[in-house]
Amino acid sequence: MGAISRDGLDVARRSREIVREKIREVLGEDIERYSEWEMRIIERVVHATADMEYAKLIRFKNHPIERGIEGIRNNCPMVVDVEMVKVGIRYDNIFSFIDDERVYEIAKEEGITRAAAAMRVAKPYIDRGIVVVGNAPTALFEVVRLIEEEGVEPRLVIGVPVGFVKAGESKELLRSIDVPSITTEGPKGGTPVAVSIANGIVELSRGREV
Amino acid sequence: MGAISRDGLDVARRSREIVREKIREVLGEDIERYSEWEMRIIERVVHATADMEYAKLIRFKNHPIERGIEGIRNNCPMVVDVEMVKVGIRYDNIFSFIDDERVYEIAKEEGITRAAAAMRVAKPYIDRGIVVVGNAPTALFEVVRLIEEEGVEPRLVIGVPVGFVKAGESKELLRSIDVPSITTEGPKGGTPVAVSIANGIVELSRGREV
Repeated sequence: MGAISRDGLDVARRSREIVREKIREVLGEDIERYSEWEMRIIERVVHATADMEYAKLIRFKNHPIERGIEGIRNNCPMVVDVEMVKVGIRYDNIFSFIDDERVYEIAKEEGITRAAAAMRVAKPYIDRGIVVVGNAPTALFEVVRLIEEEGVEPRLVIGVPVGFVKAGESKELLRSIDVPSITTEGPKGGTPVAVSIANGIVELSRGREV
Repeated sequence: MGAISRDGLDVARRSREIVREKIREVLGEDIERYSEWEMRIIERVVHATADMEYAKLIRFKNHPIERGIEGIRNNCPMVVDVEMVKVGIRYDNIFSFIDDERVYEIAKEEGITRAAAAMRVAKPYIDRGIVVVGNAPTALFEVVRLIEEEGVEPRLVIGVPVGFVKAGESKELLRSIDVPSITTEGPKGGTPVAVSIANGIVELSRGREV
């Protein structure tokens, strides 16, 4: 929110303290499994959703935060699935192709979703870039296909689509391959989860308090 | 997502069916308290968050959906708290003042948050308009102040800020006054909750399946 007033800062600080304490309670001894950076990301997601369950649902694979920071310090492209996610992330070299003309054509011709077609169009940006999927499972399936079948190598995939159909499966599939990833277990996820993870990494890369 | 492929439509349809069934389980006999339109809005929020708890957290006061539909059919202004919420809502006559120059000045001079200052700037649009607050409790407190102290009359306030500090209180305050409102009980809420409620009302106003 970019709080500049004392009131705003107070709310943010108190909220952060409450979140930390609650996460400690929820995780118990499991808290030791997480690095300091991972805890920052978890805190941020809980803060953005007011949903304590996320403390237990977030998965980190293959040093994803380190890889993300490295990418951002090199100003690598970031590809997101929808405009809402793009607007929320404080990073300039960011792309969403969901409204691209080619996407409509490919989706129609291939019989795939626009979200999946958008990832196909984004292929050159995904290679050596960071991918953020907050909504459509079909977009995440397409990212995995690009990695597996077309040798595309993202630095990091933040895969947190939401929904009771296919979202959980798409994230499980992402976790099963070797790419650095941050995901949620099960159906939960969505725009604020994606945005808070991405912004957390952006701020860590700039050495700021997340 | 504007799914145009069969795959996308299938996911959406199956997901909607699962959501309906789960809500029925969660609400039990309480389901009879809700109108058909209210159930549509609840379904939409659960669909957007994959969080069943929302079935029990959403509150409707003073025929808010009817008032919202009436406003949208009259193309009334809609004022939102942040850009992410604006991007997600499919309605043209929509405004966010968070990045307005005057907002920075007012926030600094008055020692209030930018989110609150943005509502102050939005005053002429809020009167007879629809307000959507998905993030900042301070914005919602300011909306209530405009209503109570300055006689501003919004048609509907969708007030679903998120957070462990002040968010719950701000929504309780909104529910305590006489304006038509849709809120969530407690700390949960956020951008997807705000966006799905607003889009649900927009689509109902156009006579479409929500």
